[in-house]
Amino acid sequence: MKYPASLLQLIRELSRWPGIGPKSAQKLAFYLFEQPQEDIERIAKLLLSAKEELHLCPECFNVTDKELCEVCSDQTRMRNQICVVEDAGDVLAIERSGEYRGLYHVLHGAISPMHGVGPDKLYIKQLMGRVQSDMEVILATSTTVEGEATSMYLQRQLASTGATVSRIAYGLPVGGALEYADEVTLGRAISGRQKIK
Amino acid sequence: MKYPASLLQLIRELSRWPGIGPKSAQKLAFYLFEQPQEDIERIAKLLLSAKEELHLCPECFNVTDKELCEVCSDQTRMRNQICVVEDAGDVLAIERSGEYRGLYHVLHGAISPMHGVGPDKLYIKQLMGRVQSDMEVILATSTTVEGEATSMYLQRQLASTGATVSRIAYGLPVGGALEYADEVTLGRAISGRQKIK
Repeated sequence: MKYPASLLQLIRELSRWPGIGPKSAQKLAFYLFEQPQEDIERIAKLLLSAKEELHLCPECFNVTDKELCEVCSDQTRMRNQICVVEDAGDVLAIERSGEYRGLYHVLHGAISPMHGVGPDKLYIKQLMGRVQSDMEVILATSTTVEGEATSMYLQRQLASTGATVSRIAYGLPVGGALEYADEVTLGRAISGRQKIK
Repeated sequence: MKYPASLLQLIRELSRWPGIGPKSAQKLAFYLFEQPQEDIERIAKLLLSAKEELHLCPECFNVTDKELCEVCSDQTRMRNQICVVEDAGDVLAIERSGEYRGLYHVLHGAISPMHGVGPDKLYIKQLMGRVQSDMEVILATSTTVEGEATSMYLQRQLASTGATVSRIAYGLPVGGALEYADEVTLGRAISGRQKIK
């Protein structure tokens, strides 16, 4: 027995989406098939309208439906700080922390030779065009191998600009028990210890 | 900072899909946004055409794009065996095993009072209409609480039909190490042991 062609095509498409394996794709396809016709039409429209209305902010390359994104157009934000992140989702994560009042720069990925992503595929040239000598650039890429490689690369590129360059702190996650932390994190947390008195 | 409205709507929709939490929904929405326009149009069309072309087989309620599904229209299948499964995906899983040559019946779910799914929401009445006294009904619902409840309910309903009713075997998964099996499975594997000589 084989699946009907249109179901198979849908499963194949869904299994290409990030984080969705063949089994979840199958489950999702059946779920979608069981939704009423008007819901499917609504979902199809949603996909098309999101694609149509959204674009990248020409300054920081965050996703926005306005000319400039909300952060770049906010006159109360510090203009001498640029926080460099991998994805647009990271901007919201940092915004939620409430700790940062500067600008952002979204790279749209991290350097990963394994996946054929070199520096030229990221918005690094655009970052270099924004950085001035009186600025601080905060490298907030992930602490994965790819994120670290990207951070190192940017560090070297930014050296000649005269700007202050910093990296977000490594350490224990808040609320984390010491015994569950891996040794690398623990080592970084100790070497990065802060004086409290 | 807030997300643009159309992005937010897309994230909300995706997080309603089974197995997709708010974080994966966000990741998927950004992934979709980054696909080229023609891909988004293709995906939207795929959703609509799958919905349009597919329907349930009027015999066994499997998903099909033909009048009768492939199994029901196959004259070489044993017509005196009905294997009852929860979902259309289960049919393919059993077909892949190559162990079964009878017919199927897809319930489209399992009894779950917690989620408001009573026997009347499943295709049980239709199953009762198909079963005859010279048939074997193989209950192949999951071995979860809901699957077991459904199996028990069907067992009681089928008692008066005179049909042979069986339940798929419990035991160790093939290739599984004994020490990793939970005690309930192990208990069932021992009580269900089969003579080999």
